[in-house]
Amino acid sequence: MRFCSACGSARVAWVIPEGDHRERWVCPDCGTIHYSNPKIVCGVVPLWGDRVLLARRGIEPRLGKWTLPAGFMENGESVEEGALRELWEETRARVTLGPLVAVISVPHIHQVHMMFLGELIEPRWETTPESTEIALFAPREIPWDQLAFRTVRLTLEHVLRQPEPLRAPQLVSAIR
Amino acid sequence: MRFCSACGSARVAWVIPEGDHRERWVCPDCGTIHYSNPKIVCGVVPLWGDRVLLARRGIEPRLGKWTLPAGFMENGESVEEGALRELWEETRARVTLGPLVAVISVPHIHQVHMMFLGELIEPRWETTPESTEIALFAPREIPWDQLAFRTVRLTLEHVLRQPEPLRAPQLVSAIR
Repeated sequence: MRFCSACGSARVAWVIPEGDHRERWVCPDCGTIHYSNPKIVCGVVPLWGDRVLLARRGIEPRLGKWTLPAGFMENGESVEEGALRELWEETRARVTLGPLVAVISVPHIHQVHMMFLGELIEPRWETTPESTEIALFAPREIPWDQLAFRTVRLTLEHVLRQPEPLRAPQLVSAIR
Repeated sequence: MRFCSACGSARVAWVIPEGDHRERWVCPDCGTIHYSNPKIVCGVVPLWGDRVLLARRGIEPRLGKWTLPAGFMENGESVEEGALRELWEETRARVTLGPLVAVISVPHIHQVHMMFLGELIEPRWETTPESTEIALFAPREIPWDQLAFRTVRLTLEHVLRQPEPLRAPQLVSAIR
């Protein structure tokens, strides 16, 4: 941040505001404190029987690598809505959403990844500019050495390790 | 946003960037797209036997109402670290962190609340500027009509409704 987005001042400084305990961008001219917080990446593990749907990335980063459909949660939606939207945008697939199976913090890039299980309603999908190839993989076929992100690997390892159908005792809800 | 935080331009506009599908603050002078995304509020349901620790808010909003210890997750920490930090800042209590029990989206204020169970290590706490009174409540003693937020009510209702000790099949992890 080089300029205050509230008043345009060029004097914004990285300091600890009074009564706070960590540094923020603070404008000495209008007093605005500009907070920055982690972002949520939400997505789906789309299942068809014992196979999982993966997409080959058509955009950077990790162009050409395989991933689970996921992306940044937007203002005005719930985590579940964001997960379904990202699935649709990247694969044009539809699922019945299941439990939240993975919550993975990635502190150094200020992200928290939240992945839901989903049962494909039908085995249909379409490539998009974001996904140049989409396919179902049996557990033994997963391209472990061509996965796009460590969060994808962790999530897939976790899902495949579950001995029984997954249950979710936690509350996943939305207040409007 | 009235000024571009990258170049100081006063011409930032709320428009749909090329290749996007929703409005963002975009600077026509330097081209920067300023994204805004939901924030995570993380906290703990601190348990001592069958009683839960609540804190009476010493600050706005909802000054004087009872709440579970929680607050905004910060950059550079995991969700679990954020939950423990907020517990400490608001009550000076320490817990052994348990499973994630509630993930509650609040789309209209762009928040996702994530609450963990926690077993108090010892029945010790201290009031702070943020919490003017702290106490253990048996389920029948909870001040339902004096709770600070609907997320607190939902979380407490959910925790008290669990018939057995909670298990968490989901992955809660951090990548560094």
